[in-house]
Amino acid sequence: MTTRCWAAPSADSKLAPFSIQRRAPGPTDVAMDVLFCGVCHSDLHQARGEWGRSSFPMVPGHEVIGRVTQVGAQVTKVKPGDLVGVGCMVDSCRTCAQCEAHHEMFCEAGPAWTYNGTELDRKTPTYGGYSTHLVVTERFVVTVPRGLDPARAAPLLCAGITTYSPLRQWGVEAGQQVGVVGLGGLGHLAVKLARAMGAEVTMLSTSPSKKADAQRLGASDFALTTERSTFKTHAGRFDVLLDTVSAGHDVDSLLRLLKPFGALALVGMPPKAMEVKAASLVGGNKRFAGSSIGGMKETQAMLDFCAAKGVLADVEVIPAQAINEAYERMLKNDVRYRFVIDAKTV
Amino acid sequence: MTTRCWAAPSADSKLAPFSIQRRAPGPTDVAMDVLFCGVCHSDLHQARGEWGRSSFPMVPGHEVIGRVTQVGAQVTKVKPGDLVGVGCMVDSCRTCAQCEAHHEMFCEAGPAWTYNGTELDRKTPTYGGYSTHLVVTERFVVTVPRGLDPARAAPLLCAGITTYSPLRQWGVEAGQQVGVVGLGGLGHLAVKLARAMGAEVTMLSTSPSKKADAQRLGASDFALTTERSTFKTHAGRFDVLLDTVSAGHDVDSLLRLLKPFGALALVGMPPKAMEVKAASLVGGNKRFAGSSIGGMKETQAMLDFCAAKGVLADVEVIPAQAINEAYERMLKNDVRYRFVIDAKTV
Repeated sequence: MTTRCWAAPSADSKLAPFSIQRRAPGPTDVAMDVLFCGVCHSDLHQARGEWGRSSFPMVPGHEVIGRVTQVGAQVTKVKPGDLVGVGCMVDSCRTCAQCEAHHEMFCEAGPAWTYNGTELDRKTPTYGGYSTHLVVTERFVVTVPRGLDPARAAPLLCAGITTYSPLRQWGVEAGQQVGVVGLGGLGHLAVKLARAMGAEVTMLSTSPSKKADAQRLGASDFALTTERSTFKTHAGRFDVLLDTVSAGHDVDSLLRLLKPFGALALVGMPPKAMEVKAASLVGGNKRFAGSSIGGMKETQAMLDFCAAKGVLADVEVIPAQAINEAYERMLKNDVRYRFVIDAKTV
Repeated sequence: MTTRCWAAPSADSKLAPFSIQRRAPGPTDVAMDVLFCGVCHSDLHQARGEWGRSSFPMVPGHEVIGRVTQVGAQVTKVKPGDLVGVGCMVDSCRTCAQCEAHHEMFCEAGPAWTYNGTELDRKTPTYGGYSTHLVVTERFVVTVPRGLDPARAAPLLCAGITTYSPLRQWGVEAGQQVGVVGLGGLGHLAVKLARAMGAEVTMLSTSPSKKADAQRLGASDFALTTERSTFKTHAGRFDVLLDTVSAGHDVDSLLRLLKPFGALALVGMPPKAMEVKAASLVGGNKRFAGSSIGGMKETQAMLDFCAAKGVLADVEVIPAQAINEAYERMLKNDVRYRFVIDAKTV
C-alpha cells in the first residue's frame, strides 16, 4: 500500500515528505499503523551518509510502536488492535547458529535491517519507522505489554535493548555497583534499567550540569570523569560499567574503577581506536566488552521487564515536520533524552 | 633454618649462591624440601629490576614442587612425605571479599607474593623457590596428585594456572574452537590444556618453525599472524583466543577471529598500550579480557585436571649453576618450553 513517510533524498539534503509502497501482508506478516517512532543517533549518521554505506532515498527510524491493523493467516503472536514494537531488524535467516541462539543481530547471512538495508532477497530496500504504516514478519515484532505509554516506550526498541542486554550479559543484580558513563539517550535508560535491576547506580559524566538529572533518573551517586580524583576515589568500586559515550575518551582509566572480574561494557562507538594497557585488564581479570542491541527474544524480555518495573524513556514528542531541527538539536545534546515522532503528523 | 639458595644481589648482577633463614614451621605451616623450581619470565624481569619494584637480595622462583618434611599441629591437608606445590603466593588476608571468593591473587590487602615481596607483616621479605627448603602456610600449599612427574609439574604452578584459569573463565569445552596466540612457556601449556578440555586448538604464531611443535603439542591447525590472509581465512572462527604474547602486537585484528560473544583472553603483558576499535568489540559482543594466575582452589583444580588428563610441561631440567645462562637463552626464546631447576644442585 502507498505509505506516507519522511525521507532523506540524499546524504546532503534535509528530510522531506515522501511516499513509498509497503507490501501486502503475507501469511507470516504483521501490518501496523505506526503510532510513534523514536529518533536514534544512528538515524542521523546514516541519513547524512557518515557511516559510508547509505542508500537513498532513506526512510530512517527503528524505534517503532505501532497498532496492528492486519495479520497473515499463520500469525499467532498478535491480532489486530494489539500494540506492538519493531526495532532495528525486520528479518534474518532464522536457521544459522546465531539465529537459533536468538542472536538475530549476528545472523551469519546478515539480518535485514529496518532501514537503509534490504529484505532477505538482498534487493528490496527497507524503509523505517518515519512513516505511517509498516509491514514486518511476525518474528521481528514484539508485543508491548499493557501499561507502557506508547510514545515513551518507542525508544526502548533500540536504546532500551542496547542498554538492557549488556546489563543482563554481565549479570547485574540487586546490591551491585553499576556505573553509567555518559548521560544521553542510551545513558538515561541505562540508569533507569540498572536501578530497576536493584543496582546502586553512579553516573559518570563530563558535565556537572547533569548531576541533578542523573539523580532524578535514579543514580545515587555522581562523579566527573574530567576530575583525576574520580579515578582514585572510585577505584575498584564497580561490578559493571556501561559506557554509552561515542566521543573519544579514556577507557583505560575507566577499567581502574572496576572490581576484579568487573566488566566495562561499551555500547558507544568512538570513531578512533581506544588505548588499553595490558596491566589494566590482567591486574584484576577485567573485561572490556562490546554489546550490540539484542535479539528478539531478549527485546521482548526487556519490554516485559520495563512494564513490570515502570521503566520508560524521557521523551520530547515532535511532529515529523520538526525532524531536521531535531537532528541539529541532537548534535548539541539538546534533548532530554529522546525525540519521538508522532506518526499522526507524518 | 639456614637454607641454601641462589639470589640476585642487585638488578645488575648475576645470580649467585646465597644463604637465607627460613622460619621454623608454625601451627599452620608446611615445611618442605624443594625438589624442582620452574624458571618463569617474571623471575628474570624482577631479578633485573625491569618492573620497577624489586628488592634485593632476591631469591626468585614461584613454580615450586616440594616434598613435605614437617607440618604444624593444625595442618590437615598434607603430611610429611607428601608431594606439594607452591605457586606465586604464600599468604593473603583470607577475610576480604576476594579471599572469601577464592581469588587470593586479588586480596584487597595485597597477597604475600612468593618472592620479591613481604609476609603479611609487610616487613619480612619473602624468598622464592631457587632454594633447598621452603616454609609456607597450609592454605597456599597445593597437593600434587600421584602420577605427575615432579620436574614437569613445577611449571604448572604459574604457567599452568595462568593458562588454565582463563580457559575455565570463558567456558572452554569439548567441540569448541580455541586459538592460542604465541608458543612459549605459557602457550605450550595453553595448547595442551585446551586440547585436554576437548577443544579443537589452533596455534597462531609469527614463526613457521613452530608449526611441527604446535601439532605435536596437540594443535590441529596452525596459522601465521604475520599473514594478512589469516585474518580473513579464520575470521569469526574462535570461541576463545588465549593470547600469551608479551611483545607488542595487533590485538584488534585478533578480535576479528572471534565468533559473536567470543573472548580474547590476554595473559601476556605487552609493554605499550594496545589499540582496540569500538566496532571490533561492539560488532559481535566480543570480549577483551585479562587474566592473572588463579586462586588456590583453582590451582588445586588445575593440578587435579592435569593429573587426570596427563598434562605436563615440556621442560629442560638445569642445575642452579646454569640459571644465568638460562635467562639469556629465555631472552632468545631458546627453550622448549620451560627451564626447571633441580633443587639438589642449589
